[in-house]
Amino acid sequence: MADTAVRPENTTDEHADVSLDVDTLTTHLLGKWRDIRLEAREMIKDERFWQIPGQHYEEHRERVFGQTKLLAERGAGARAFPTEYGGLGTQGGNLAGFEELVLADPSLQIKSGVQWGLFTSAIYQLGTKKHWDRWLPDAISLELPGAFAMTETGHGSDVQSIATTATYDPETEEFVIHTPFRGAYKDYLGNAAKHGRAATVFAQLITGGVNYGVHCFFMPIRDEAGEMLPGILSEDDGPKGGLNGVDNGRLAFDHVRVPRENLLNRYGDVAADGTYTSSIASPGRRFFTMLGALVQGRVSLDGAATWGAALALDIAVTYGNQRRQFDDGTGQETVLLDYGKHRRRLIPRIATVYAQAFAHEELLQKFDSVFSGESDTDENRQDLETLAAALKPLSTWNALDTIQEAREACGGQGYLSENRLVGLHQDLDVYATFEGDNNVLLQLVGKRLLGDFAQQFKGKDSAALAAYAAKQGASKFFHGAGLRRLGQTVADLGSTARSVEFGLRGDDQHQLLTDRVQQMVADVGARLNQARKLPPAEAQAVFNENQVDLLDAARAHGELLQWEAFTDAIDQIDHEGTRTVMTWVRDLFGLSLIEEHLSWHIIGGRLSTQRAAALTRYIDRLCTRLRPHAQDLVDAFGFAPEHVRAPIASGAERERQDEARAYYADLRAKGEEPIPEKKARAAS
Amino acid sequence: MADTAVRPENTTDEHADVSLDVDTLTTHLLGKWRDIRLEAREMIKDERFWQIPGQHYEEHRERVFGQTKLLAERGAGARAFPTEYGGLGTQGGNLAGFEELVLADPSLQIKSGVQWGLFTSAIYQLGTKKHWDRWLPDAISLELPGAFAMTETGHGSDVQSIATTATYDPETEEFVIHTPFRGAYKDYLGNAAKHGRAATVFAQLITGGVNYGVHCFFMPIRDEAGEMLPGILSEDDGPKGGLNGVDNGRLAFDHVRVPRENLLNRYGDVAADGTYTSSIASPGRRFFTMLGALVQGRVSLDGAATWGAALALDIAVTYGNQRRQFDDGTGQETVLLDYGKHRRRLIPRIATVYAQAFAHEELLQKFDSVFSGESDTDENRQDLETLAAALKPLSTWNALDTIQEAREACGGQGYLSENRLVGLHQDLDVYATFEGDNNVLLQLVGKRLLGDFAQQFKGKDSAALAAYAAKQGASKFFHGAGLRRLGQTVADLGSTARSVEFGLRGDDQHQLLTDRVQQMVADVGARLNQARKLPPAEAQAVFNENQVDLLDAARAHGELLQWEAFTDAIDQIDHEGTRTVMTWVRDLFGLSLIEEHLSWHIIGGRLSTQRAAALTRYIDRLCTRLRPHAQDLVDAFGFAPEHVRAPIASGAERERQDEARAYYADLRAKGEEPIPEKKARAAS
Repeated sequence: MADTAVRPENTTDEHADVSLDVDTLTTHLLGKWRDIRLEAREMIKDERFWQIPGQHYEEHRERVFGQTKLLAERGAGARAFPTEYGGLGTQGGNLAGFEELVLADPSLQIKSGVQWGLFTSAIYQLGTKKHWDRWLPDAISLELPGAFAMTETGHGSDVQSIATTATYDPETEEFVIHTPFRGAYKDYLGNAAKHGRAATVFAQLITGGVNYGVHCFFMPIRDEAGEMLPGILSEDDGPKGGLNGVDNGRLAFDHVRVPRENLLNRYGDVAADGTYTSSIASPGRRFFTMLGALVQGRVSLDGAATWGAALALDIAVTYGNQRRQFDDGTGQETVLLDYGKHRRRLIPRIATVYAQAFAHEELLQKFDSVFSGESDTDENRQDLETLAAALKPLSTWNALDTIQEAREACGGQGYLSENRLVGLHQDLDVYATFEGDNNVLLQLVGKRLLGDFAQQFKGKDSAALAAYAAKQGASKFFHGAGLRRLGQTVADLGSTARSVEFGLRGDDQHQLLTDRVQQMVADVGARLNQARKLPPAEAQAVFNENQVDLLDAARAHGELLQWEAFTDAIDQIDHEGTRTVMTWVRDLFGLSLIEEHLSWHIIGGRLSTQRAAALTRYIDRLCTRLRPHAQDLVDAFGFAPEHVRAPIASGAERERQDEARAYYADLRAKGEEPIPEKKARAAS
Repeated sequence: MADTAVRPENTTDEHADVSLDVDTLTTHLLGKWRDIRLEAREMIKDERFWQIPGQHYEEHRERVFGQTKLLAERGAGARAFPTEYGGLGTQGGNLAGFEELVLADPSLQIKSGVQWGLFTSAIYQLGTKKHWDRWLPDAISLELPGAFAMTETGHGSDVQSIATTATYDPETEEFVIHTPFRGAYKDYLGNAAKHGRAATVFAQLITGGVNYGVHCFFMPIRDEAGEMLPGILSEDDGPKGGLNGVDNGRLAFDHVRVPRENLLNRYGDVAADGTYTSSIASPGRRFFTMLGALVQGRVSLDGAATWGAALALDIAVTYGNQRRQFDDGTGQETVLLDYGKHRRRLIPRIATVYAQAFAHEELLQKFDSVFSGESDTDENRQDLETLAAALKPLSTWNALDTIQEAREACGGQGYLSENRLVGLHQDLDVYATFEGDNNVLLQLVGKRLLGDFAQQFKGKDSAALAAYAAKQGASKFFHGAGLRRLGQTVADLGSTARSVEFGLRGDDQHQLLTDRVQQMVADVGARLNQARKLPPAEAQAVFNENQVDLLDAARAHGELLQWEAFTDAIDQIDHEGTRTVMTWVRDLFGLSLIEEHLSWHIIGGRLSTQRAAALTRYIDRLCTRLRPHAQDLVDAFGFAPEHVRAPIASGAERERQDEARAYYADLRAKGEEPIPEKKARAAS
């Protein structure tokens, strides 16, 4: 759609001759599993995969179930699984392919994620060969649609505390699975309200009067006719804020018996006599290993949210490049994207989506290397989980923010379902709280950062820690006084901008972003350390006082990782113009992060107030410099018209504008234009 | 619902004995037209007025049309109109009553707003007695449902440039109303797709070859059977992001003829021979007078958005006071609102909603005094329009932000339609861009501020202006050096907090907020002033460089007005505890605004970095201090269960928590609790 872009006619920018190569950039964005992504994008050009805006949720559910069957027919459900089950055994490629489905209908991405990413994966990751042989083929082919029954109404983020019990009965060699109270109902499960015939049920495994913690059990829930099996209750969660093509519901169990063999026993098993055994002695480590096996949900949401935000920007920027409003004083109406505010509201968000995309690619490769077995170590698993927990909150929140801004930037058109922005927001809304609530995930990251921080002081006393914290404090200026002096020697805006550029290149951004993470972790760490010896309630109070800062530190860590991934990605680009533009985009991302936390940088003495003031002006200049490239930058996402589908981004607005201008030109040419009242009065 | 609140058990706060009186506070919040608000709230306890989540949009439209008829039967459509047409002639009270409808279904608020606030009001405000006699009774009774046909696909914010023409034909004494091209289709009009039988159509009035600008015409569009009249095309806008109970659509006209008398001729008329006359000579002033007559839409959105945000907070705070997650280290699960992050994400937003509510009450009283005729001067009309343009963007954006935060704070429950948060967000989404796009409105405010600023320099040369701007610059410290010195004499956190409190009382907040508006306006004004003599294209470029700052200044002005209204409202409260708590809430609002723009205040030398750092800690302390009052503060919105309706805020969560705790207590009492693995292993 590059041909529909309006380029500013008069640009005085010295960088006006730089241009990027859209195809090159698309290739980089699509990453290692480009072929699988392109194959998925090709497949969903078929309109049978498209969301129908305004469809009633019950019909929508059937439509998406049908789409999932189409996917199964094409083998999409098998990709991640071993070749003996008809799969390709590609972990990263599998997720890459599923992420693209968000362009067709996010409900399809989630419905297939439930079936293959959660239900089938639980059988594969938590079960053993007997389970694979028995259930994998039907799960892969969708003969056996299943629910992933982990979350309960009363426990979402705190999975360790779920209340469903699986009590072993050695007499019959069965587990008795039971829901003891309403809060223990399994809840929000895709496939539970309607289509699921089985479920992987997480429950506290109790044998011989001992609770061995959360384990997963395979349980049939509906018969072939779709009737609930005895002892199993299903409730419908009803309409939701979005994702209404997924039949979320609840399950409850009244002493439901499953054979001993239905325990998915990769990490823990119960012998016929009731004896429990596990290859992982520590209950805590065992629990986190089991949950960690299911990290792919978070990984794929990070990718899908990024493409969702990219689609929203593609729509808003294309429209903003065609839509005109208000006379600019020369008798022409101004193209929206030529307004300073419009540039500021959209262009930095393009930069963020690029950062997300490159960081996601790194996450995906890390995921692949661990889950393919190539580098499957405990440490790598932990790093992967931390990385996923750091990136998923940022990308899912940013998607919501970006889609909303895009929707508002398109005015009334943006509110029509046909233009897709409202649907994207509604569907992606829950990405911020499912597969790990974003704040809870950031807290995990924060605790990991604190742990790494504490490692440095292992064996040292708290005085050493306090001394370190003090050293890190306000006395440490960014690059000493040099930067500040530099800011004070310049006079006019032009040269300020240039010297800021000089002083805020990549390395400087990196230093500021890194310092912020380290300082915040050190500060929180020092404060929490002081509370270590307090009674639990008081220690909890101190934690609560510091929770916001801890989450901010985790967020800053995720942003730093995105910035680093962006920078590494630029190094891979050979095309000079593309590399130049991408460096500006990266600068815009980095400087916007610094601007967002500007008061922090000033208070900590890392930026002088003068330099801080110049930063905002420089960001404005970057937006202006990138404005002619805005269309290329969204075109590089590589979406075809069948992926975009929004009429306002299809050229319809351009046609309307051209028609209107032609009409007035024609009136003028014919001398039929009515005289404006003011002019008529002046003439009389 | 105060009885369902959990109060923290151990509070060491010195202010723990202060308590507010919920009923007193409700009375203040409901304001001057409390009786009408309560009557409306009583009416919508009837479930026939409630939104049904997940309903298909076509059924939803019929339901809402039926509800609008119920309103008409109860006389709600007449309130604003003169007694001779069955009305009460109350302007402020009328809007107050309609605002409350957002609690039933925002679609009903907007559908009735279209009928009576726009269509009927256009007849009343822009027409004359002959029009009132002919159409008001049927419009009021809903015998004549109508559309308000102003916006076109190609022109929304820029009404002055709409392209529909109304060309006078003296031969037949008719206006020929015509849509010259696709961009001129009337668009997004409620009642246009389905129910409207007439429309008030805005078009360029052309007579004798002269264009006299935008005027409004009454036009029948459908016959009694609902068929389109000849020459009129209607298209359905289809499903939208929300408000799907309103049948938005397009209208286009193919040389449709209406009698000369159908011109709503209060501000401009055409004689039989085609001569144009108007009581307002300036075309610009005439246009703004006509549009200004319709300001009530913005006023009522400000109120409705405030109640919508209040409802979301009521739901999230009530749930956050009952829901528990994660062991706090003492074997008890922590109530969500006891987490530092949860307090920080919800309590400052309560403060903002209070500020909005009090500011809205002032706006409504101003509206009433102008439109009742009590103080209907040009200056008051302009002030009213500026006030509405300043407040509506803040409250509608804040509603979206608050509802989204509330939805995420309720996790998976928040995503279920039955808990209302997602529906509120979807319905209120468009409030940010309709009845004046928020950014365009802020720009109007900004230009007004610039105008007022320029007034001070009328007749002076630009050197005077530059000197003023320089004087206002970085050299001006807030309260001189005193504040900074104060910040540097304190050592520990406790006394910092107290001295910050001392240094950031109401007057200090006011000074900082006021200075910010003045300084930003002066800065932008000085820069734009320098561009005055440039050619249009270059002047436009300078404007664009300053647009973001201008909008920020307008926003700061609106925030200042909210702060002032809040402060004035506190002065009206006699109950001491209530006044004390409300002062903390006001402080939280004011200090949060200062924190949001903290880097600005530091860069401008108005806050020392030390004081700025202490500010955030003090806000945390205010959140902690207000935490025990959070339930009272949302209870004071005065919503009955029939207004809230969300199951999670109905006590269901409390019941689930109690049941779960009782279950475990019972197990323990009976000695049937399974032994945790760790303990079992330690014992063996």
